[in-house]
Amino acid sequence: MVEKLTEKISDEEKKISRRGLLVGAGKVAAGAAIVTAGMGLVSTAEASKAKFPWPYKKLDIDKVAKIAYENWFKNFCCYAVTSSILIPLREKVGEPYTSFPLMSTKWGHGGAVGWGTLCGSLTGAGIVTGLCAGHDGENILNEVIYWYADTALPMYKPANPKARIKSVNKSDSPLCHISVGKWMKKEGVKFFSPQRKDRCARLSADVAVQTVKFLNAWADGKFKPTHKFPLFGYGITAQENCTECHGSDVPQPLR
Amino acid sequence: MVEKLTEKISDEEKKISRRGLLVGAGKVAAGAAIVTAGMGLVSTAEASKAKFPWPYKKLDIDKVAKIAYENWFKNFCCYAVTSSILIPLREKVGEPYTSFPLMSTKWGHGGAVGWGTLCGSLTGAGIVTGLCAGHDGENILNEVIYWYADTALPMYKPANPKARIKSVNKSDSPLCHISVGKWMKKEGVKFFSPQRKDRCARLSADVAVQTVKFLNAWADGKFKPTHKFPLFGYGITAQENCTECHGSDVPQPLR
Repeated sequence: MVEKLTEKISDEEKKISRRGLLVGAGKVAAGAAIVTAGMGLVSTAEASKAKFPWPYKKLDIDKVAKIAYENWFKNFCCYAVTSSILIPLREKVGEPYTSFPLMSTKWGHGGAVGWGTLCGSLTGAGIVTGLCAGHDGENILNEVIYWYADTALPMYKPANPKARIKSVNKSDSPLCHISVGKWMKKEGVKFFSPQRKDRCARLSADVAVQTVKFLNAWADGKFKPTHKFPLFGYGITAQENCTECHGSDVPQPLR
Repeated sequence: MVEKLTEKISDEEKKISRRGLLVGAGKVAAGAAIVTAGMGLVSTAEASKAKFPWPYKKLDIDKVAKIAYENWFKNFCCYAVTSSILIPLREKVGEPYTSFPLMSTKWGHGGAVGWGTLCGSLTGAGIVTGLCAGHDGENILNEVIYWYADTALPMYKPANPKARIKSVNKSDSPLCHISVGKWMKKEGVKFFSPQRKDRCARLSADVAVQTVKFLNAWADGKFKPTHKFPLFGYGITAQENCTECHGSDVPQPLR
């Protein structure tokens, strides 16, 4: 029963997703009761009523940036990015965004409750692209991560910055520890300094904006992925900065 | 207006969370219309109707493990963990779990679409604890990550394994690349081998079970965090395995 149920839900969401590939068609929902050969009616408790993906409408990047920057100071990076995109979608679309608890995404901060892994702004981008762009979201997230690792950040200039900063830095990595560590070294500041906080708030605005640029292009049918997933280049899940941890003695991948 | 709105939503979710600290009290919802001094009625489009956290009911770990293992082979690690916990909650609680699209969490696989960062099973644990346990979820996730890095995995023995494996390994790290890379080296197998896939499916079951053990204890009022967040030990977001990347020349943290 467990297998049949989980398979049913997965298949149903896949089916919805295929129909949902037309942007804005996310309103097609699986009914509470689904008739399938040999199984009859599935109860409401068992069947998925999950729309997937949620409908996306093009957003204004200036507004998104402003919310992300301000909201970093409330609940940090992951919340900053998710809220900066999902709050405008609450206004433009309403449900199901209105019922989604933005605070549930706060855990991504500092690379997952401070463990320095995936930059929380990118976790936020993952959550948002997962909800709004369905299976295409993975290609969008991949492009956001490549852009993040390869761009001197932060770029965003808040109208009323909470601290003055002078440095921008290319991280070569989506890891919080590496990204913020390199920037702190360049700026010569401590982690709990006002400058570091402002850098992360501005960077969250940058990631939110870049994610929305890709999502807006996708909504127009103009998003074209330009990178493969790195997994296929290395024979293992990986970043692109092998020598930073491995030195010149990079192990041969077991493909 | 943007600032006022974002602050209002954040404050409202915090208020709900405080009330929601009594497990099962998650049904307290922010009304569609909220009266506040000086602002009058906030429209439905603007106000958050988000319940936070979502109500949690204790789950059976054997069922969770079985769903996680089986669902890994459908959509990989992050989906495996989220679906293994949220599907039983759909059955026990119903909404809002029923309407949440499980497929939206698939992106976490392979450390975020294959970038090797946070193990997708832990991203799944983050998403679930964020939704179900509110602010306490951060302490639960921190304990899950410490347990993950410090435990020889996988432990789960599927009734009908899809491949035979012989190795278990302690990762010392929540990073997919490091965790799976060490295990592949020990087992002597390639990334795209049936053995590696089975290892990750079993590990997803382990992470789902450990997360549910903590959530069940929390539901009974018996969850006690035993670790601080690593951020406070290093003066930067960090893992505990400094020398693996830095060698013996570990930089002095800028606190």
